[in-house]
Amino acid sequence: MDPNNPNSEKSLSRRRFFKNASIGAAAIAGVPLLTNACADQVKEISSLEHFFHEGDVLLFQGDSITDAGREKTKELPNEAKSFGVGYAQAIATRLLSDLPEKKLSIYNRGISGNKVFQLAERWQKDCLDLKPDVLSILIGVNDYWHTRNKNYEGTPEVYEMDFRTLLDQTKTTFPDLKLIICEPFILAETRAVDESWLEAFKPYQEAAAKIAQEFNAIWVPFQSAFTKATELAPATYWTADGVHPSMAGAGLMAKTWLESI
Amino acid sequence: MDPNNPNSEKSLSRRRFFKNASIGAAAIAGVPLLTNACADQVKEISSLEHFFHEGDVLLFQGDSITDAGREKTKELPNEAKSFGVGYAQAIATRLLSDLPEKKLSIYNRGISGNKVFQLAERWQKDCLDLKPDVLSILIGVNDYWHTRNKNYEGTPEVYEMDFRTLLDQTKTTFPDLKLIICEPFILAETRAVDESWLEAFKPYQEAAAKIAQEFNAIWVPFQSAFTKATELAPATYWTADGVHPSMAGAGLMAKTWLESI
Repeated sequence: MDPNNPNSEKSLSRRRFFKNASIGAAAIAGVPLLTNACADQVKEISSLEHFFHEGDVLLFQGDSITDAGREKTKELPNEAKSFGVGYAQAIATRLLSDLPEKKLSIYNRGISGNKVFQLAERWQKDCLDLKPDVLSILIGVNDYWHTRNKNYEGTPEVYEMDFRTLLDQTKTTFPDLKLIICEPFILAETRAVDESWLEAFKPYQEAAAKIAQEFNAIWVPFQSAFTKATELAPATYWTADGVHPSMAGAGLMAKTWLESI
Repeated sequence: MDPNNPNSEKSLSRRRFFKNASIGAAAIAGVPLLTNACADQVKEISSLEHFFHEGDVLLFQGDSITDAGREKTKELPNEAKSFGVGYAQAIATRLLSDLPEKKLSIYNRGISGNKVFQLAERWQKDCLDLKPDVLSILIGVNDYWHTRNKNYEGTPEVYEMDFRTLLDQTKTTFPDLKLIICEPFILAETRAVDESWLEAFKPYQEAAAKIAQEFNAIWVPFQSAFTKATELAPATYWTADGVHPSMAGAGLMAKTWLESI
């Protein structure tokens, strides 16, 4: 019996047990939150263990949200200073402590201000040379933002085309690469973002979703996570300027990312 | 029925359910890890919600392990740069994202190289002025380390006495303060620490534990967490020099801290 096979007998009985446990739990008033958290945690640990293989290289790519003030002199894997203080660091911290036996090498190569075509310009050095097994990309907010202040003339179509070209090249080089595409997000009623962004930004989000589907990538729905979070605390609690997450926002992103895989 | 009372009917039936679920689960071969994780997660969310009150101020105090390269110009609460890249940041990220409705203010005021008497020297500004509701302290490794390189002449007795005086003063000022005392830890077979540290450092760890008991503080058993973790990966995976945690080590500390409260 292969323990890595999700359809093995052990896996099936495990899933059956948790399914039954959930049904039993739901019958008890007052515990749905805990039960859901419990089921989520079980699913999360189980999928993380299956998702990563020993020695995997995981690379985070993107703009300032990924960069998060990382030190760029050394750019070491698994090194806190090379990660800055954003969601990539929160995720790496969790993965490295929860999965020590996987011996993961995790890199952050996000660079502030990047649009998708700027990823392409540094892709050999900052992606292909690292030979990633898993690649997580969050890109798109600057592709729109920089058109608002007239520093860029791109469109959602250009964004989509550039993104597709980048991933075509990447998948040609590494056919077995696991792709994680993160939804670019914004929150209005914040320092930099107002309602006028929402409709204009949606085509970029749709393009990212379309690309994720085309490349059979894991999709991380950051926008809905942030929108839902505003039911619990104001938008500025999660991101002061509507683009860059606070610590709370980075934690929310880490949770959403981990749940998505 | 008071939902905050852990002995309320709802709480009791909740706990009874999870106890039964755990027993049921343990009977199924192959799932103990998931079951324990599940039970731990349930306990953790439940206790975190009870432990913190709306508007609580949480302060992290200590030496370089707490400092973790934080930016000291602004020293803001809930601000990633003011937290550095260590366990305090990992914990704050989790708490701020998981408990948005608590409106916590979380500070990091650890300073590299500090021994317990040096906390005392800056205690008014870096603790009392912040009016903490919850205070987490990790201090002690320099109280021993600096005696090895002849930069300090303290003893475990001096450490214990200084620690007690500091906490006496703090509890006199804030009788309702919740105290969290973290066990100072080391790992041998690393860059800075060898076997000769272990026996000599133990009296400092015992003094910290004694102080925790005297002040009815929550005790965070970092040493056993790190020692246990070396069964899964070498000591240097968790801390390169035996004193300062890696990202994996910081994640382990965050998990241990959160489970302890």
